[in-house]
Amino acid sequence: MQPCSLTIAVIALAIAGSAFAQMKPEDEIRYRQSVMNVAGRAFTPMIQMAQDKIPYNREVVAKNTQVLQTVIGLHWDAFGPGTERGAPTKADLKIWSEPDKFKTSAEKAQEAVGKLGQTVRTGDEKEVKAALGGVGKTCKGCHDDYRLKEARD
Amino acid sequence: MQPCSLTIAVIALAIAGSAFAQMKPEDEIRYRQSVMNVAGRAFTPMIQMAQDKIPYNREVVAKNTQVLQTVIGLHWDAFGPGTERGAPTKADLKIWSEPDKFKTSAEKAQEAVGKLGQTVRTGDEKEVKAALGGVGKTCKGCHDDYRLKEARD
Repeated sequence: MQPCSLTIAVIALAIAGSAFAQMKPEDEIRYRQSVMNVAGRAFTPMIQMAQDKIPYNREVVAKNTQVLQTVIGLHWDAFGPGTERGAPTKADLKIWSEPDKFKTSAEKAQEAVGKLGQTVRTGDEKEVKAALGGVGKTCKGCHDDYRLKEARD
Repeated sequence: MQPCSLTIAVIALAIAGSAFAQMKPEDEIRYRQSVMNVAGRAFTPMIQMAQDKIPYNREVVAKNTQVLQTVIGLHWDAFGPGTERGAPTKADLKIWSEPDKFKTSAEKAQEAVGKLGQTVRTGDEKEVKAALGGVGKTCKGCHDDYRLKEARD
């Protein structure tokens, strides 16, 4: 490693360290829950439309998909080491014991949301509803594996 | 009003009613807090950059501004009648006694975020930092007027 690269690495580490130092586990847990709450609020009416429980509304789908695309994944970094506990959470401890599997599961959700975004731009109602179903399936898959039924300390 | 318009209005009211029925005050309060939490997490490093506390990072600013633009305002509708109480909240009761003033204050924040988005696309670092300062000022203005220091029931 060149001295310059080393300096940059040390600075990067210092920044990362200082950022990490500011992030208390309870703040990370709260942030994860906030992101999921915002994502859920955007997704709920859309999946209700996909299930024909409420009328399809193209504008709501466009807006809420944009919200979903923006927020999904914001919180992956908030599942870092040391954030297993600190506040009541439904995050299964498996997240930290099998991080690669969790990452794969999370990425599937992110891909499904990406596909939804593409379909909303180019597809018809039927295709959008199918893409919404795909998002719902990956959400459920990740939740079944990594979200507990009850909050734990 | 034509019969058709009336029917549409009745249907719209039924949908709105059913959506409202699903929204418990505690859910609305939690949603408001979630949106503010996500917005705050996006804004914090940017205002630290504007204040030269951490190095300016163009990619972070672009990404976080997009998050801020997407989420800011999502929660204005969650300050509806009947959501004054239901869970611990720092929302000042003035929000419901002077809704027009609150709306104006909230709109100022939204405008400042819109200006930031424009500046991030076209401006230089100095201009972006000034726009970030503008966002901080409107956030603070609204918080000074409508956010209590301590949560209330």
